[in-house]
Amino acid sequence: MYPKKIANDTAEVIQNYLTYQAVRVILDQLSETNPKQAIWLRQYTASHNIQKGESFIEGLMGEDKELVMRILKVREYLASEVMEFMPQMVRHRISQANVEHRRQLLERLTRSSSVSSTASESENDDSPSNCD
Amino acid sequence: MYPKKIANDTAEVIQNYLTYQAVRVILDQLSETNPKQAIWLRQYTASHNIQKGESFIEGLMGEDKELVMRILKVREYLASEVMEFMPQMVRHRISQANVEHRRQLLERLTRSSSVSSTASESENDDSPSNCD
Repeated sequence: MYPKKIANDTAEVIQNYLTYQAVRVILDQLSETNPKQAIWLRQYTASHNIQKGESFIEGLMGEDKELVMRILKVREYLASEVMEFMPQMVRHRISQANVEHRRQLLERLTRSSSVSSTASESENDDSPSNCD
Repeated sequence: MYPKKIANDTAEVIQNYLTYQAVRVILDQLSETNPKQAIWLRQYTASHNIQKGESFIEGLMGEDKELVMRILKVREYLASEVMEFMPQMVRHRISQANVEHRRQLLERLTRSSSVSSTASESENDDSPSNCD
């Protein structure tokens, strides 16, 4: 395995995601304070690929520099707020989900083995009558 | 802002992403050890939504229980390996990217103000001749 490459790719995914969340936060704020700009940003976001955070910001630079500054600030704030507990949160979520999936697997195995044992029992039940 | 909700959503995104990475790791391993199963898993992955990790795993349960067990194990391992340094990595990446974007913004502002000052200078240069 190659955890270093996976760590880098994961960090990039999170960076893009926090940029997207920063834009969402700003959209919410603008819809209260400046509905016209909120509509503009919503339309801009819908017509530009926000999944690639850095290119999105670069593109926006030619349109509205203040909005860019605001996105940079908000995503930095979000990273400082949400990342601290992320390792525990993710490990806990995966561990809990795995427990649940393993329980389901066991249930399926038990069910299928009880079905097959019932089937073999009924075969055994039949055998004496077959011998008659 | 609502960092708790954003933290939860971010954790979900990472959980899905690590599940996807676990499947990729297993595909790489299988292509060495069991190419036939690798082809099968590749086809299964292409025709099922792997972006929703938990539903993907549940669907696979009806097809290949051993593969499911392997995915659970690998994603748990990946989470333990890559999450520890994720807070520093993400904060560092965002901080570095922000520095670069701010530098570009400053460059654009300097360029546009030097263009406008050149323009106003040339206007001033013209004015005497206009007065002549």
